[in-house]
Amino acid sequence: MSNKNISITLTTNKKQKPDVNNLVFGKVFTDHMFVMDYSSDKGWHDARITPYQPITIEPSAMIFHYGQTVFEGLKAYFSEDGKVLLFRPEKNMQRLNQSNDRLCIPAIDEELALEALKELINIDREWVPQAEGTSLYVRPFIISTEPTLGVHPANNYKFMIIMSPVGSYYKEGIHPVKIAVENKYVRAVAGGTGQAKTAGNYASSLKAQEVAEEKGYSQVLWLDGVERKYIEEVGSMNIFFKINGEVVTPELNGSILAGITRDSIIHLLKHWNVPVVEKRISIDEIFQAYKDGQLEEVFGTGTAAVISPVGELFWNNERIIVNGGQTGELSMKLYNTLTGIQLGKESDPFGWVVEVEQKVEHK
Amino acid sequence: MSNKNISITLTTNKKQKPDVNNLVFGKVFTDHMFVMDYSSDKGWHDARITPYQPITIEPSAMIFHYGQTVFEGLKAYFSEDGKVLLFRPEKNMQRLNQSNDRLCIPAIDEELALEALKELINIDREWVPQAEGTSLYVRPFIISTEPTLGVHPANNYKFMIIMSPVGSYYKEGIHPVKIAVENKYVRAVAGGTGQAKTAGNYASSLKAQEVAEEKGYSQVLWLDGVERKYIEEVGSMNIFFKINGEVVTPELNGSILAGITRDSIIHLLKHWNVPVVEKRISIDEIFQAYKDGQLEEVFGTGTAAVISPVGELFWNNERIIVNGGQTGELSMKLYNTLTGIQLGKESDPFGWVVEVEQKVEHK
Repeated sequence: MSNKNISITLTTNKKQKPDVNNLVFGKVFTDHMFVMDYSSDKGWHDARITPYQPITIEPSAMIFHYGQTVFEGLKAYFSEDGKVLLFRPEKNMQRLNQSNDRLCIPAIDEELALEALKELINIDREWVPQAEGTSLYVRPFIISTEPTLGVHPANNYKFMIIMSPVGSYYKEGIHPVKIAVENKYVRAVAGGTGQAKTAGNYASSLKAQEVAEEKGYSQVLWLDGVERKYIEEVGSMNIFFKINGEVVTPELNGSILAGITRDSIIHLLKHWNVPVVEKRISIDEIFQAYKDGQLEEVFGTGTAAVISPVGELFWNNERIIVNGGQTGELSMKLYNTLTGIQLGKESDPFGWVVEVEQKVEHK
Repeated sequence: MSNKNISITLTTNKKQKPDVNNLVFGKVFTDHMFVMDYSSDKGWHDARITPYQPITIEPSAMIFHYGQTVFEGLKAYFSEDGKVLLFRPEKNMQRLNQSNDRLCIPAIDEELALEALKELINIDREWVPQAEGTSLYVRPFIISTEPTLGVHPANNYKFMIIMSPVGSYYKEGIHPVKIAVENKYVRAVAGGTGQAKTAGNYASSLKAQEVAEEKGYSQVLWLDGVERKYIEEVGSMNIFFKINGEVVTPELNGSILAGITRDSIIHLLKHWNVPVVEKRISIDEIFQAYKDGQLEEVFGTGTAAVISPVGELFWNNERIIVNGGQTGELSMKLYNTLTGIQLGKESDPFGWVVEVEQKVEHK
C-alpha cells in the first residue's frame, strides 16, 4: 500500500521489451496497469496496480452502447541524466475531470490519479525507452461498466491507466504534412462534446480522415459546424498560424479541445515576446494572408508530435504551399525548446516538468 | 449449423426467468447471445450462438478509446395466438449498415444477421414474455476490438445480439410526458453522426437529460446546432405535431435519426388519408400554433414507447399545455393500431410483421 492506499500486485511473468527501433504507436503495453472502480454506493474505490491483463465485462456494459467514457494522453520521457520526466501531468488530470463533468462521469481525485500514475511508471520504469525521440505513452481512461441498457449516467465505472512505449514521431526528422480542409463532415459544434476528450469525437472523425487519406492528405482541418467557415482544429491537434509576424490560434470556443501543448506553446511565445492571439479565424483569412504573402508558418500542436508543421493546405480546389513546403523557423524553435524542456535538456521557466522519483522496487 | 453457417452451443445451465410483473428495462438477459467476429484478413466470420456470458477484451481495445461502435434496438412480441412476432426487423439491419458506413465499420450481411436474430429468438423463445405490454427487447451492436491506440478505423470488430425481457412502457396506461426544449446543449449537427445510431450521440445527450430531469421534465427536445431554432428530435425519439388537422414532423436532415417507428407512423397516416408533411419546423412555429389555438397534439415515436404523447412543452420560460395535458385522439389511435399490428391483433396492410417460426429445439 502506498500512502494513498493504492494496493500493488506485481507480475510474476515480465514480458519481453519490444525492439526500441521498431515501436509502433500504442500496440505493446507494459507489465502493469492501474485500475480503480466506481459504484454509486461506494464512490471511487479499490485503487490498485495489477499485472497488465484483459478485462472481463458484460456485453450489456453501457460503454458498448452509450459511449460514456473519457480519456487522456501524456508521455513520460527518459532524460539524459537518467531521470524519468512527465510534462504537466496535473493538467491532464484536471482536463480529465472537465471531460468527466460534460459526460456525467463522477470526478476522480486528481492527486490520487497523479500518484497512481507516478507509482505505475516507477514500477514499469524499465519500460521507458531511452533512444532519441522515444517515450512512454500513458493513457488514463474511464469507461462506464454498468450492465444495463437504460439511457442514463451509469452507476458503475472503471478508471484505468495503461502505458505503451512509443517510437519517435519523426523518424526521418521533422517534416511538414499536407492537410485538407474539411467541408462535408463536422467534428463538433458548440453545445456538443468537442471540448471534452471523449470517444465519440474520435469515432465521428474517422470518415473524414479516411476520405482525406485516400486523396493523399495526412489529416483534415475542421471548420466550425455552424458557418463552415471558422477554423477549429486539425485532425486531433490544435492549429497555429504565423501571419505577418503574429501567431494566431483559434480561441477556446467550446467545441475545440483545450490542448496542453497548445497552452504550453502560447506560454512560450509570450515568454519570448512573440505576439500571439487567440481568436476566431476564418479559413478565408488564411488563404487571403497567403495571397498577400503574409502566411509565414502553419503548425499543429499535440502530445504525439509536439509540433507538426503544415506544408500544404487544400480547400475548395485551391492548394497553398506554406513556407515553400519547409518547416518554419519558429515551428522548429518551438519544437526544439518544448522537447528540450520535456527531456530536461532545456531550462524549465514555468516548472512544467515533474520527475517520477525512483523508489525501492516493491516485492 | 443452420443453413447460414451459424454454429450453436446451448447453455447447460438455464437461468431463472424474472418476474414478468417487475421487469426493469435492459437489466436481465436471456440464456443465449449471438456473436460474430471481424478481422481485416478474414472479413466477418465465426457466426455463433453461445450461452450469454461476459466478454474478455483488452484494455487497449479501440471501443474504449475512440468509440467506433453502432447499435440497433427492436422488439419481439408474443401474439394472442402464441406466435413470436418481429416488427420490420430488416429495417434495423439496413440502418445498422447505414450507421456502419458513417462510422467506417465494415458492412454486415443483413440476411445473415436477420437469420441469426430469428435463430437466437427461437432458441430463447420461452424468454418472450406473454403479459400484456411486455416484449423481448433485442439489441444488436458492433464494437471495435482491435487492441491499439492509433486513431484509425479498427481492423477487428465483434457483432453481438443480446436480448432482454422488458415490461410495459405504460404500466398505468398511456400518459403524456413533460418535455423541456434544450437551448444550451446540442445533440448533433449536419456533417456529424446524428443520423447514425452510435454511442457518442447518447453519451453527448446525458448532460442535458440530467439537467431536464432535475427540473421535473422527463426528456428534452433538441434544437438544431446551427440556428438553435429548428426542431430535431426529443430525447431518443422522433417527434410529431398535429397542427390544424395536419401532422408535421422534422424532415430527415442528416442530423436526426431515421426512426423505424417514425417511418411506420408516416405510412399509417398516409394510408388513413391524414395529411402528413416532413419539413423543417421551428420551435417558434409550434409556440405560435399553440397561441393560435391550432396545436392539437404532440407525440414522440420510438421503439421503447411506440407513441409517447407530450402534454407539456417548456421553452424560454414559457410553458404550453398540449391538448389539456391529455393524450390526443390521433396519438391514441396510432398507438392502438401500431401495437395492434405488432401483436398480430390488427391487419397488417404493409406486411410489416415477421414471424419467428418455431423450430425443433437444438440438442
